Amino acid sequence: MWQYQAPLRDMRFVIEEWLAAPNDWQNTASFAGLDGELAAQILEEAGRFSAGVLAPLNASGDQEGCQYAQGKVKTPTGFPEAYKAFVEGGWASLACAEADGGQGLPQLLNAALMEMLFAANHAWAMYPGIAHGAYECLKAHGSDALKALYLPAIVSGEILPTMCLTEPQAGSDVGLLRTRAEPSAAGQYRVTGNKVFVSGGEQDLTDNILHLVLARLPDAPAGSRGISLFLVPKILPDGRRNSISCDGIEHKMGIRGSATCTLSFEGAEGWLLGEPHRGLAAMFVMMNSARLHVGLQGLGHAEAAWQNASAYAAERQQMRAVSRPEGKPEAKVDPIHYHPAMRRTLLELRTLTEGMRALGYWTAHGLDLAEYADTPEQRQQAHRWTALLTPVIKAYFTEQGFRLASSALQVFGGYGYVREYAIEQTLRDSRIAMIYEGTNEIQANDLLLRKVIGDAGQGLQDLLQRMQQEIEQSESIPSCQTYARALADYGDKTSAITTTLIQAASTDPERPYRAAGDYLRLIGLLSLGFVWLRSARLAAGREADPFYAAKQESAAFYFNYLLPEANHRLALLGATRHGLPFLAE
Amino acid sequence: MWQYQAPLRDMRFVIEEWLAAPNDWQNTASFAGLDGELAAQILEEAGRFSAGVLAPLNASGDQEGCQYAQGKVKTPTGFPEAYKAFVEGGWASLACAEADGGQGLPQLLNAALMEMLFAANHAWAMYPGIAHGAYECLKAHGSDALKALYLPAIVSGEILPTMCLTEPQAGSDVGLLRTRAEPSAAGQYRVTGNKVFVSGGEQDLTDNILHLVLARLPDAPAGSRGISLFLVPKILPDGRRNSISCDGIEHKMGIRGSATCTLSFEGAEGWLLGEPHRGLAAMFVMMNSARLHVGLQGLGHAEAAWQNASAYAAERQQMRAVSRPEGKPEAKVDPIHYHPAMRRTLLELRTLTEGMRALGYWTAHGLDLAEYADTPEQRQQAHRWTALLTPVIKAYFTEQGFRLASSALQVFGGYGYVREYAIEQTLRDSRIAMIYEGTNEIQANDLLLRKVIGDAGQGLQDLLQRMQQEIEQSESIPSCQTYARALADYGDKTSAITTTLIQAASTDPERPYRAAGDYLRLIGLLSLGFVWLRSARLAAGREADPFYAAKQESAAFYFNYLLPEANHRLALLGATRHGLPFLAE
Repeated sequence: MWQYQAPLRDMRFVIEEWLAAPNDWQNTASFAGLDGELAAQILEEAGRFSAGVLAPLNASGDQEGCQYAQGKVKTPTGFPEAYKAFVEGGWASLACAEADGGQGLPQLLNAALMEMLFAANHAWAMYPGIAHGAYECLKAHGSDALKALYLPAIVSGEILPTMCLTEPQAGSDVGLLRTRAEPSAAGQYRVTGNKVFVSGGEQDLTDNILHLVLARLPDAPAGSRGISLFLVPKILPDGRRNSISCDGIEHKMGIRGSATCTLSFEGAEGWLLGEPHRGLAAMFVMMNSARLHVGLQGLGHAEAAWQNASAYAAERQQMRAVSRPEGKPEAKVDPIHYHPAMRRTLLELRTLTEGMRALGYWTAHGLDLAEYADTPEQRQQAHRWTALLTPVIKAYFTEQGFRLASSALQVFGGYGYVREYAIEQTLRDSRIAMIYEGTNEIQANDLLLRKVIGDAGQGLQDLLQRMQQEIEQSESIPSCQTYARALADYGDKTSAITTTLIQAASTDPERPYRAAGDYLRLIGLLSLGFVWLRSARLAAGREADPFYAAKQESAAFYFNYLLPEANHRLALLGATRHGLPFLAE
Repeated sequence: MWQYQAPLRDMRFVIEEWLAAPNDWQNTASFAGLDGELAAQILEEAGRFSAGVLAPLNASGDQEGCQYAQGKVKTPTGFPEAYKAFVEGGWASLACAEADGGQGLPQLLNAALMEMLFAANHAWAMYPGIAHGAYECLKAHGSDALKALYLPAIVSGEILPTMCLTEPQAGSDVGLLRTRAEPSAAGQYRVTGNKVFVSGGEQDLTDNILHLVLARLPDAPAGSRGISLFLVPKILPDGRRNSISCDGIEHKMGIRGSATCTLSFEGAEGWLLGEPHRGLAAMFVMMNSARLHVGLQGLGHAEAAWQNASAYAAERQQMRAVSRPEGKPEAKVDPIHYHPAMRRTLLELRTLTEGMRALGYWTAHGLDLAEYADTPEQRQQAHRWTALLTPVIKAYFTEQGFRLASSALQVFGGYGYVREYAIEQTLRDSRIAMIYEGTNEIQANDLLLRKVIGDAGQGLQDLLQRMQQEIEQSESIPSCQTYARALADYGDKTSAITTTLIQAASTDPERPYRAAGDYLRLIGLLSLGFVWLRSARLAAGREADPFYAAKQESAAFYFNYLLPEANHRLALLGATRHGLPFLAE
């Protein structure tokens, strides 16, 4: 019933036209051998793997779930074999450097791969999901000896990493963690403590697991400045089993094929990664790409929701429609995708999904430019706007992924609520992404407090300037004029409210915290306006091709029906001048 | 972990102060013996049953689910015993007439009871959920012989009814149904066909089940004008088993303790209820109270979400807050309900939940007045605004119930996603209410197309006049002035857009269908504005009592933070002048 095919045509549009990424690749020493054609072939292959191997295990993995017994975890039937195929296909090493045995491809292509994996089977994709982040972290902070020991195995996919952060009393507030690490022989440490919510903390996909563990050294200051990062393998290099036990797995609302483990470290042997007490900074290397990837989960769920809802709505016949496409004869009963409420739902699904794809890939491309662009200025600038957009991608995309999964479920009516059609699984799976990797509330604070106010609005000005360039290019095209004007107007209003919030913070320090959620949604809407203005410009005059005709329709829908929410967010941001009472205790 | 206590204090406020229902009762012959004190005692008892008997079975019922084997259904452990206690407590007959063996109490108290049952255990409450509607239907349309046969057993709770409408090809479009009914001996009929999504179609709570079945007579015209209603018992009066088989139950996302059955009728014996081909009209007697009750499911889930999220947020400590209640000393870590984002979430939960309670009970009270008020004018007027508000209650409340369950889940962070805290169950359970009993899209069409445009805006004018009366009473109170003005302004804008939509419909018949969803949300927001204006007036000058101080805070929050969405809905209603393309086939 549930189906997934990689949206290759739209991926090519985003990469080759919207981003014109091949031009940047050719101007960048690291990617000079890559062109649009080769990228498309790689994505086609990734699409075959996702649709052919992962998607068929999505519903069965959910129904079977993971089984825990006596410290061991059995993942759902087919998961280990799918991982073997993933490794053999070279997907684990896509964006790892060639010098490390990887394929040296851009983050941009890795983002497209991630979208497909998460769309096809979120639970399965959790296992390799943070491998690239761990690779970057080890590469940046590991000693040569540690890198020699573990980097090739991560790149090859022979070993899978985990992140061990959360403890029962330390969730969003990682500074409350209590796990200890004591120096032992030969530069090693012994780690003791309990970690919860460790994805893939135990599994049967790889023989060894490499845990990245946050813990405190004996002399550590309290709070988040006393946290160090340790590398703690399940199996030690000499073949001994480390003192780590998996005490159980969570019974979750969704991603039931992903083992969410409780781990006990009982004097487990490991190594310090990075400097003492600087563990959060070291882990932060993983965070930007990890947050982008969680955002791509939202995109993947939106894509799956769109595909399944649109297929069902074209097939299901209920009631006579109030209007029909030109040339369609009257009928006693019509496919439900003729009904206006369903058309609106489906257009919203398509428009937001495609818009998020361009925005998410733009950010991934920014990560590449921040690392590989030729001049330091280019790298600095790319770093700035990707840092600004990362919390938006994480929070806005995951919120939309969940909301759109619910919209798609609604298209199915009663059938949406039963297991058989698996759209209810998309809804359940999508919900976690609003929580982990920093809750969406924390992302909103990060955006407004750190990335905007902390930077006196500079990063935002960069973003608005890029929009301004697009506005100038578009406004001479008749079909784009009203969109360009609307976007310019929202840009001005966003600047103004940003100034207001920055000023207000000095007398009412709580106000930005009251405003952060709406501010993030405003930036999300504005960024998607930028996406759709450029898409409309690229599609102008090409309506003979149904692909571009659909882009024009979606742009119109975005500017007429979706972007007006930006006005609402602006009004709410004004309303945050009103204080919020405390709740009775 | 998951907890529920009936919100008796707020229920009394709504019934005794907001509605001043005891005044109406004393002026109505049928309820003259009822006063606020007695009503409160009844609700207290209902609260004890809901919290003490049903709530403890909520999580276990979800985990165990229903078991189907060889045509029989086993409901979760404790469900049959809870039903026995329900019947023995007299709850089944609360709002049935005394002449029929019931307690003759108002729909208003039954609504409060329903809120509690659904909040405490939605799955369980599905079994008796439509009994009152079936009672009304049989009473209005049954022959004396049928009434003598079945009315007392429904009133006593000895027999539970079902509604058998949906067939695989006939969901929202009931006109497509194919089940046939052929006349047989002695005024009886033989019913043949397959029904799906029959809640409680088979169960182990009662020995007999009374199916209300929509089917076609041999001479029936096609479509919805050829549908008749039949009463088909599982066990015939002579003790024979009727030819009905339960072929299976659905595996659902939520309300897993409710058996959703596929039934085959194979020449099953039954009786016609009402006139031939007028089955939908006969069933419509059930619909108004059934839709109100589904809306109350949304309210119940919102209440459960609020209770659980606020309790957790008061207890869970993470991070230092940017501000604290006056007099609270600085601390290294604060309860999360100090954090502005959480305060905003919790205030929204409380404000919408309490607002929906007043609005829902107002409508239930309207059903009583429509039946029992002294003058035909009063009855007519009450009928008019309850008919207008019923689709709003059904769709707006269920949408909010789901959305607020998700907000509450977010308060729990990662713990919200695991089974242990059961808030994820609230989210899963709440989702169905947006679909069944007429999808929310169908409710929106009903509101705008039938209840507003079909009535040339008359019913809406009645509603706005009632708001105007409240505005006039409130505007002299200083603390209410800005609220009164805001509500008056939104009322004018709502009138204006309604006129626009009515006029536009003549040249663009599709436009109201594009607009219906936003229109329903606008009316929901406006109605809650009315609720909070009156609540603010009632609370004025009484802030020394924490209950009324909280009402004042909630009113302020509603007018500052929530009602502005009405402007957004007005803007979108304007945007619906833009057509929507058809999707590619």
